[in-house]
This record gives sequence, C-alpha cells and structure tokens, in this order.
Amino acid sequence: MRIAIDAMGGDNAPQAIVAGAIRAASELDQVNLVLYGDEAKVNELLGEKPSNIEVVATSQVIQGDDEPVRSVRRKKDASMVRAARDVKDGKANALISAGNTGALLTAGTLIIGRIKGLDRPALMGTLPSLYSDKVFQLMDLGANADCKPLNLDQFAVLGSYYAKNMRGVDQPKVALLNNGTEDSKGNDLSKSAFELLSKNQAIDFIGNIEAKEILQAPADVIVTDGFTGNAVLKSMEGTAKAVIDQIKSTLKSGSVKTKLGGFLIKKDLSSLKDLLDYSKIGGAVLFGTRAPVIKTHGSANAEALYHTVKQARDIIDSQAIQALSQYFEQEKIK
Amino acid sequence: MRIAIDAMGGDNAPQAIVAGAIRAASELDQVNLVLYGDEAKVNELLGEKPSNIEVVATSQVIQGDDEPVRSVRRKKDASMVRAARDVKDGKANALISAGNTGALLTAGTLIIGRIKGLDRPALMGTLPSLYSDKVFQLMDLGANADCKPLNLDQFAVLGSYYAKNMRGVDQPKVALLNNGTEDSKGNDLSKSAFELLSKNQAIDFIGNIEAKEILQAPADVIVTDGFTGNAVLKSMEGTAKAVIDQIKSTLKSGSVKTKLGGFLIKKDLSSLKDLLDYSKIGGAVLFGTRAPVIKTHGSANAEALYHTVKQARDIIDSQAIQALSQYFEQEKIK
Repeated sequence: MRIAIDAMGGDNAPQAIVAGAIRAASELDQVNLVLYGDEAKVNELLGEKPSNIEVVATSQVIQGDDEPVRSVRRKKDASMVRAARDVKDGKANALISAGNTGALLTAGTLIIGRIKGLDRPALMGTLPSLYSDKVFQLMDLGANADCKPLNLDQFAVLGSYYAKNMRGVDQPKVALLNNGTEDSKGNDLSKSAFELLSKNQAIDFIGNIEAKEILQAPADVIVTDGFTGNAVLKSMEGTAKAVIDQIKSTLKSGSVKTKLGGFLIKKDLSSLKDLLDYSKIGGAVLFGTRAPVIKTHGSANAEALYHTVKQARDIIDSQAIQALSQYFEQEKIK
Repeated sequence: MRIAIDAMGGDNAPQAIVAGAIRAASELDQVNLVLYGDEAKVNELLGEKPSNIEVVATSQVIQGDDEPVRSVRRKKDASMVRAARDVKDGKANALISAGNTGALLTAGTLIIGRIKGLDRPALMGTLPSLYSDKVFQLMDLGANADCKPLNLDQFAVLGSYYAKNMRGVDQPKVALLNNGTEDSKGNDLSKSAFELLSKNQAIDFIGNIEAKEILQAPADVIVTDGFTGNAVLKSMEGTAKAVIDQIKSTLKSGSVKTKLGGFLIKKDLSSLKDLLDYSKIGGAVLFGTRAPVIKTHGSANAEALYHTVKQARDIIDSQAIQALSQYFEQEKIK
C-alpha cells in the first residue's frame, strides 16, 4: 500500500507534513509513503530516511490563491499534480494534500478520474454530533456547486458505503438536507432528488431533515448539493467560533465574579473547542474518484497529517472503492 | 394607520397576541390595531376595549401543520386569510402573524400581491453581528426556494431600501453570499447574479462573502436564494443552540470547580442567549408585497408582538414601500 503525499501544501508545509509522515511511517503497519516536493528541504526534514518513505523531487508548488483549474493544467511539475498523476498511473493508492482545496478537487477529478458509472464524485466530511458520540457523513461540501438530482442520489450511495465500510454502520440511514421535513418540501432539485432517493434500493432513506438538526446527527449520511453543503458547513464553523469568541470576550470584560467563573471553566471551554475541531476526525474525502483523495485543513499540524494517513490507510484497507466500482458498474448495465 | 393582526397564529395565541396588542395600542402613537380571530375569546382577553383596537370575528384558523397553499385557498374565513384580504382591500396597511410561515408567505404573495415590476418578494430577516453592534439584512430566508439571477438582484434593491429607510444607513453595502470570495466563484445562479449586481446602479455592491463571515456583518444587506438562506439561517440557529447546550451540560456534569465556575457565569450565559434571540430585533418581513407582511416567531410572547407592531409602524412611516414601488415602476419602463 502506497500513499502519495503533497509535502508542499498548506500553511505549515513542508515541516508539519514531513513530521506527520515520519510518525505515520513508524507507527502504521503496511504503509509506504511517497512525499512530493522540494527534495533538499524534505530530505533535510526527514533526517535519517525511514525505509518506508520515498521522496519524489518536484519543482513547482500550487499556492493557496492560485486559480484551481488553470494551476493544475499549467503547473505540471507541482507537487500536488505529480502526486495525482502517480496515483492515476497506479503507483500509489491514495492522495493526501493540505493545499489549495479547489486545485486538489480538480486534480482528483481531472487527473485521477471518477469511478466508472458515477456521474460526479463528492467532497465528504465526517462531522461529530454535539449531542452524542455519533458521527455522520455530510456531502457534498463543495466539489459540485451545481448538482442534478442524480448526483444527490449517487452521493447517498457513496456515503452509505463509507459509513458501512469505514465506520461499521450496519445499515446507514440517509437523509436529504431540505428546507422542511415534510416529503413535499424543497426546491426543484431537492424535490426531484427526494423522488430518486425514495426509490433507491441500495440505501436506507429516512426522508428530509432541516439544517438546524444537523448537529444532532439525525442520520448517518446527509446529502445536499455542493453549494448548500458548503454554505451550511461554513455557517456552522462561523457560528461556533462566533459564540465561543463571544463567551470569551464576555468572560474577559465582565465583573470579578465573571472573570473568576471564566478562569474556573477555562479548560472546559477549550475542550469544547476541540469537539468542534473537525480536523481531529480526519480530512474531507473526495469520494468517488478511482482512488481516495483526502484534503486536510490548510493549517494541519503533524498530528492532523498523521490521522489523515491513517484514514487513507483505512479507506484502502476497507476495499470501499472496489465495492463502489462494482456497484456503479452494475448500475450502468441495468 | 391600521395594522391587521392575526390573533390566532402561533403557540401562545390568542393570549400573547392580545396582550402585546394592548401594550402596543396604549404606547404607540398613530396606531390602530385590528385583531382577527375568535371574537368571544379575544374580547374576553381585551377586557375594557381600547378605542384604537377593533376586533373582526373569524371562524377558522390555519394550523401550524396545514399545507400552506391549500389552506390559504380553502380556509376562506381563517383569521390570517381575512386579515390579508383586508390589507389587500386597503382597509389596513400591514399584516402581522405568528402563525404558519408558509401560509403567511402564500397569503402575502397571492392575496396582498407584489409591487408592480418586482418579480418576487423576499423574506428578510434583520440579524445581529456577534462582533459589534451592527445589524444586517439577510434575504431570502425561504420565500423563494428556486430563484433566478434577477431575483437576487431585486432582493438587493429591496434590502437596500429597508436598510436606508428603516435603519438610516446612508449607502447600504450589499454582498452576495457565495462559496468563495473571488469574483469568479459560485454556482450558475450566483455567478449570473454577481454579473447583475455588479452592474446595478441602485445599490452599492461590494462582492461575494462566505457563510462563515456572516455573523461579522460584512455588509448591510446579504442576498442569496431562499433555499440557501433558509439552510444558512437554520444552521446558525442550530449551531448556536448546540454550542450553548453543550457548554451547559459540560458545566453541569463537570468537577466542583467547573460547577462553581458555571454558577458564577450563569447570568453571562443567559445574556448571550438573548443576543442570539433574533426575535428581539423584530420579525422577518416579507418585503416587496404591496404592504409589509411580518412574521413573528411561533413562540412569540407579548413583548415580541409589541416589538413587531412597532416595526410595522416604522415601515409604514418610512414610506419605503412607496419609494420601492416608484423605483420598480421606473425600472419597468426602462
């Protein structure tokens, strides 16, 4: 098993990426890592090179503000592009990057390519409930700004396979994010998607849910189009941050009593922040490509990178991609 | 000035509605209120009837779970429908209800009707920043699940007139909610809307904003389609509630130290909850109809109803609807 890692992507590259790779290479069985990037820098950070890490020298880097499609097309020797090409050529089984999200989605879709019979892959996150230990898949988080009903129906299948194979959920429940819970609710897209999801024998569709329920994890898989998914995810992140910032500033500027109270619960507040730190659960996966592409936060540290490698290993191990390929191949024949 | 109030809508009707109306009738100048509902019940709650409150007897009520369009069409003697009809006939200048949102939007659109030259009215909320004293208009919150680019462009005009006339903002800044800040970002709808907004001389368009920035109030008016607006608003509500619930449960189940800290900041936490209580700022307005239609929370108490009457009075006073009618009339001629 070989995992291709873009060593130059993200705010803390290549230091954090290499540090995370060293830990993953030493602690995870079966795993061989290939780091793409500035050879001299990466080798220096690696020190005495572990036997299960390789370095591939690349001369270009896709920056955070580069235009995704253009940069993937033009920067042929960029670390991310070279890594994607090696995955495409079967030299590696998964791609990890903390770099430009749009470029990574483009590299995944255009270079690695989608599973036969699948119309579009989806960017899928694993999010935690704030009310229980449950986690759930939310998709699409932005790979497809415009979706057809078929896409949402196929996302439901992708998410169900992931929940089943990766999280061990026996019969994953799927919900459609909508502007009301009644069956008849929605815009044109969600109404048509509801019809398809209701008829889909490969999934356990439980109907519509509203955005206010998401953090209660009412289903194992929640599907929506990439524009709405992106807006909802960012709203949740922004609101959680705003509320915690507000509490902090209230506690700081309040009375002596308030300040004392704030001091006493300081630790609890930071553990709450951890709970909202989605990066701990792993990166967002572009799922539905011929090999998994995982995006970790731009600010990913060595620990986040380590967990992402573990996640990539588990996806490869689970054979979910093979099972999905088989499913969509059969669907095509039908 | 006459304001039509659905006395039977919402969880606390008619008690809270009548109590709020009594306060509004006694404290607000120029205001005459017309209450639609169960005559005996409403009269009993009114006690000695103030001279500026009238009661119109109606025999039906639209329930919270009634199908909006069908119930508005069939329940011809429902309090909400009678009130809407009187506004349409010029017997009142605004409509207020705490009842079924979908039915109220239907009554507003089908019975009262839109301003000439405007394609679709929008459901608009006034939200607070969590980082400053600023408030901003967010629209559409769900009146139009499917929107055309023209709709978003017209919403920007509606929101700007409201910010100017009601909030005294000299040159309201308008932003488009999008999945990235760059000009080229978006789905088909937001890309086309961006073009129109950029060319619109009647507004001060500042470009795209992302959902994570919303609570920083980066603009005076933020426009999006009704499906996304609904999802974003509900995500923010759900997340704020989840974070506060989580803090409370952490503080309750923690160590003695944590519990003491929680006790000391109890008051601060509840004032934070107030800050997130959008109902304090007033109801959501269906804006762009020939008379304003205001939806207060289903759980509205007497105080919320009082503030909503004040808001209706201020909209009527501001002559914003007349100014908008003139604007769209001229746009039509162009």
